[in-house]
Amino acid sequence: MPRNFIQLIKSKWGERKFVCVGLDSDYEKIPNHLKQTVRGLASHSKEIFRFNKAIIDTTKDLVCAYKPNSAFYEAYGDEGMRALKKTCDYILKTAPTVPIILDAKRGDIDRTNEMYAKFAFDWLRADAITVSPYLGEKSLSNFLARSDKGIIVLCKTSNEGSDEFQNLPLRQAGPLTTQDSPVYSQIARNVAEKWNKNGNCLLVVGATYPKELKEIRKIAGDLPLLIPGIGKQGGDLEAVIKNGQDSNGQGMIINSSSGIIFASNDKNFAKKAREETLKLHKAISNLLGGPTSK
Amino acid sequence: MPRNFIQLIKSKWGERKFVCVGLDSDYEKIPNHLKQTVRGLASHSKEIFRFNKAIIDTTKDLVCAYKPNSAFYEAYGDEGMRALKKTCDYILKTAPTVPIILDAKRGDIDRTNEMYAKFAFDWLRADAITVSPYLGEKSLSNFLARSDKGIIVLCKTSNEGSDEFQNLPLRQAGPLTTQDSPVYSQIARNVAEKWNKNGNCLLVVGATYPKELKEIRKIAGDLPLLIPGIGKQGGDLEAVIKNGQDSNGQGMIINSSSGIIFASNDKNFAKKAREETLKLHKAISNLLGGPTSK
Repeated sequence: MPRNFIQLIKSKWGERKFVCVGLDSDYEKIPNHLKQTVRGLASHSKEIFRFNKAIIDTTKDLVCAYKPNSAFYEAYGDEGMRALKKTCDYILKTAPTVPIILDAKRGDIDRTNEMYAKFAFDWLRADAITVSPYLGEKSLSNFLARSDKGIIVLCKTSNEGSDEFQNLPLRQAGPLTTQDSPVYSQIARNVAEKWNKNGNCLLVVGATYPKELKEIRKIAGDLPLLIPGIGKQGGDLEAVIKNGQDSNGQGMIINSSSGIIFASNDKNFAKKAREETLKLHKAISNLLGGPTSK
Repeated sequence: MPRNFIQLIKSKWGERKFVCVGLDSDYEKIPNHLKQTVRGLASHSKEIFRFNKAIIDTTKDLVCAYKPNSAFYEAYGDEGMRALKKTCDYILKTAPTVPIILDAKRGDIDRTNEMYAKFAFDWLRADAITVSPYLGEKSLSNFLARSDKGIIVLCKTSNEGSDEFQNLPLRQAGPLTTQDSPVYSQIARNVAEKWNKNGNCLLVVGATYPKELKEIRKIAGDLPLLIPGIGKQGGDLEAVIKNGQDSNGQGMIINSSSGIIFASNDKNFAKKAREETLKLHKAISNLLGGPTSK
C-alpha cells in the first residue's frame, strides 16, 4: 500500500499516540560531546544528524509524528540540508510507521509551490508540510493536489502577537452587525469547506490560545489539528485536550520541541528526551481517558 | 562603509535603474547545452550556477537588483543550495553594487525566524528577504532588527486568487459602516506606520492589481515596493509606473523572471536575456520620463 499521511497518523491515533517531537535541532544547543571538529571545522551535517538519530532511537515507539523545522537546517546551508535529508531517511528506515511533517511554512505562487513540494515530498520524502494561507487556495493547488500528503495550513499560530492580523474582525456579508468573525475563523472555514477536497488538509492552532482552539474545532469539524505551543511556550495541556479533540477523542498532533529534545544537554540527553516524551504521552492519555498503549 | 540594502537600491534608482531580474532558475527550463551529465548523473549545482552566471554577466549593468527564488534551488536539496550560494557569491564579487533579494516568503515564530535570517543574511549574504506577515510584527522582530537588510513584506500578491484572504473586508472600529478596508490595506498601514522603525521595510504588491497598487502607494507613502507580475503574469507596465512610483518618481523594484531568463533556450539565451532586460529598462525610462542611463 502506498504511503499516505492521513492513514499513518490515524493509525498512530489508533495506538493512542498523540505526541509529535519537533526536531528544531538548534546546532548551538546540541550537547558539546556530540560536536567533534575536524581540523578546526565543525561538521554541522554530521553533528546535527547524530543528535537527531539519538532522539529518534529513544522516542520512536512513543510518538505519532516527527516534525523537523526546516529553518534550523537551512541556517547551515548545504551542510544543514544534508543533515535534514539524512534525518528524514533515518526516520523512513528505522521508524517507517511514523509520519514526517516538514515544518517550513511555505507559500508562494503556483509554479514556485511546485518546487517547494518537490523539495519536501520528492527530495526529503516528507509526509506533510506546513503552509501559509496568505496567497489563497489557488496558489496552493500544487500542494493540495498531493492527496497522499498532509497539507497543514497556518490558522491561529502560538506566538505572542499572532492577533495582529489573525484576530482582526471581518465584516460579514448581509446586514451590518457587530458580531466578530476574525480572520483565523475564516481561514478555518475555507480550509474545512473548500480546500479539503482530497481529505488531506489540517490546521495549525497554537495551544497558547485555548478559546480560539475551541472555536476552530467547532468550525472545522473533525479536521485534524497540529497543536504547537505546550511546554516552553506555556500552553495548557488540559485546555488543549478539552478543546482540541475531535468527535472521536482524537484528531490532535500535539507538538513539543525544545521541552523534549533539549531536556538535558548532558550525555544522557536522549534518555531525558524519552522521559519527557513519555511524561507528555502519559499526561495526554490520562486526560483523554480510555486505554493507553504504554 | 558597511553594505546596506536601502542605500544600494536608492543608488540604483539614482542611476534610473528599476528592473529586478528574478532568478527563478528552473532546472527543467535551463538550455540543454548547459547540461553536461557526468557518468549519467546531472550536476544540478554546477548547471544552475552556470546558467545564472551567464545571465548575471549580460545584465548586471542594467538592473537594480537580482532576486533568486529559493524554491527553485531547494527543489534540488543540498546541490541546489550550493548553486544558490555560488550565485550569491558571484553577484557579490562581480556586481557588488547590485543588491540581492532572497525571495523566500519566510515567516515563523521568533527563534525560527532568527535561523531563517541566518540562512539568508549570514550564509547567503543576501541583502533583503521576502517575508509573510501572517504571524505579525513581533514574530518578525529578528528580521526587522537587521537595519542593514531589506525586509519585504507580502501585501497584495500577484497571483490569481490572492483576493481569497487579502481582499476580505475588515470591520472598522467605531460606528458601523459598509466602507471596505481590506486586509492588504491593513497590512500596508501596519508595516508603514509600525514595523518600519529601522527604515528597512518594503511591500510586495503585484503588477496584476493596479487598483490595489494605487491604494497601497497612498497608504504607504514613500515606502519602497517590490512589484512582480509584469510579463508572463500579465501586469500592465504603464499602470504600474503610474500607480506605483513614490513622490520622487522612484521607489519601485520591478521584477521580471521567466520573461527575461527564459526568453530563449538556445545558445543565445544570455544575449536574449540582456535584450529583454534592456527593453523593459527602456520602457520604464520612457514612462517615467527624465534622463536615462542607457
